[in-house]
Amino acid sequence: MATPVYSETRTTPQRGRPRDASRDDALRQAALEVMAEVGYRALTMDAVAARARAGKATIYRRWESKLDLVIDTCTQLAQQNLAEPDTGSLAGDLREFLAAFAAFLSGPSGKAAQALVGELPHEPELASAFRETFLTTQRDVLRGILERADGRGELRPDAPRGMAVEIAGAALIYRLMLTGDPLDVPFVDRVVEQVLLPLVAKGQ
Amino acid sequence: MATPVYSETRTTPQRGRPRDASRDDALRQAALEVMAEVGYRALTMDAVAARARAGKATIYRRWESKLDLVIDTCTQLAQQNLAEPDTGSLAGDLREFLAAFAAFLSGPSGKAAQALVGELPHEPELASAFRETFLTTQRDVLRGILERADGRGELRPDAPRGMAVEIAGAALIYRLMLTGDPLDVPFVDRVVEQVLLPLVAKGQ
Repeated sequence: MATPVYSETRTTPQRGRPRDASRDDALRQAALEVMAEVGYRALTMDAVAARARAGKATIYRRWESKLDLVIDTCTQLAQQNLAEPDTGSLAGDLREFLAAFAAFLSGPSGKAAQALVGELPHEPELASAFRETFLTTQRDVLRGILERADGRGELRPDAPRGMAVEIAGAALIYRLMLTGDPLDVPFVDRVVEQVLLPLVAKGQ
Repeated sequence: MATPVYSETRTTPQRGRPRDASRDDALRQAALEVMAEVGYRALTMDAVAARARAGKATIYRRWESKLDLVIDTCTQLAQQNLAEPDTGSLAGDLREFLAAFAAFLSGPSGKAAQALVGELPHEPELASAFRETFLTTQRDVLRGILERADGRGELRPDAPRGMAVEIAGAALIYRLMLTGDPLDVPFVDRVVEQVLLPLVAKGQ
């Protein structure tokens, strides 16, 4: 059996970053939890290390700075949680994706995102990274849903696609961060039935 | 000429809070600016006093705590800036109100609101006060706009009013706090033309 190139148990130091995926995931999870509790500005590598029961050196071998760690955490979370649905219908795809997105936002990721948002004006690098990972990923999924619906002939020719994509994200984020009203499946259904389908679907 | 009951120049102390309105406004303005810069948690009465070139005792005579000061600041700002429009048409009222709301959010009030939002999960008293002032006021104005439009026969009978009100607020807040895209009159016009009128107006 071949020895894994990267392994938690290796005894000789290696050049570059270790790649133990589950260890990295545990560190990112710790970063997410600390961020949800104290925000970005107050997050320290020490606190993340303590939460993950890891040495600070372990973290610094993998990420150069807390910005690097936070950006990588956001990127991974977006990739893992904002998957493209493919139910075969516009209504089905919108429901499936927005319900998954609402569930994602209702957990620690949503709390972390909320903690970050207040700091974006003072942290330009964080702001652009947050937009490029979290926002762009969900927007791209929504655009893909509308494109596939168009390919099936489900969209009105004059459908305001860009606005529909923006409103879908806005509706969920506003509940999460401002009103505090439930971000649940009944709400997602209302957004789809009362707003998105009437705006973009044929024959509405 | 009658001596004003409350005056900045009075020499004898009075029971209760002083009511010099322009002085109070200057203190609230200072609170708003400090909040926009450092958020709620890091705001101190000392910093507000220094910004307003006032004594800390002056602030404490008027507001018992920083929570009291911040809530009063939000309430006054909402009352002064979120006025009901009355242009005589649904489209006109929506445009006028949302353009004013967008301008309000684009200034220091928007920055302060953004700084507060990240702290709402950890500050339940602040959260309920923020919702009761800032959110309720703009929602009530939007509800009033739809009600008057209904009185003039401009609304569809099945118009999803609650959802339209929520989406209008969400669209503006999402730009302000998340995407960073311009919160300007062309955007407001698109929200009105592409989203709100199609959802609620007759004959769309």
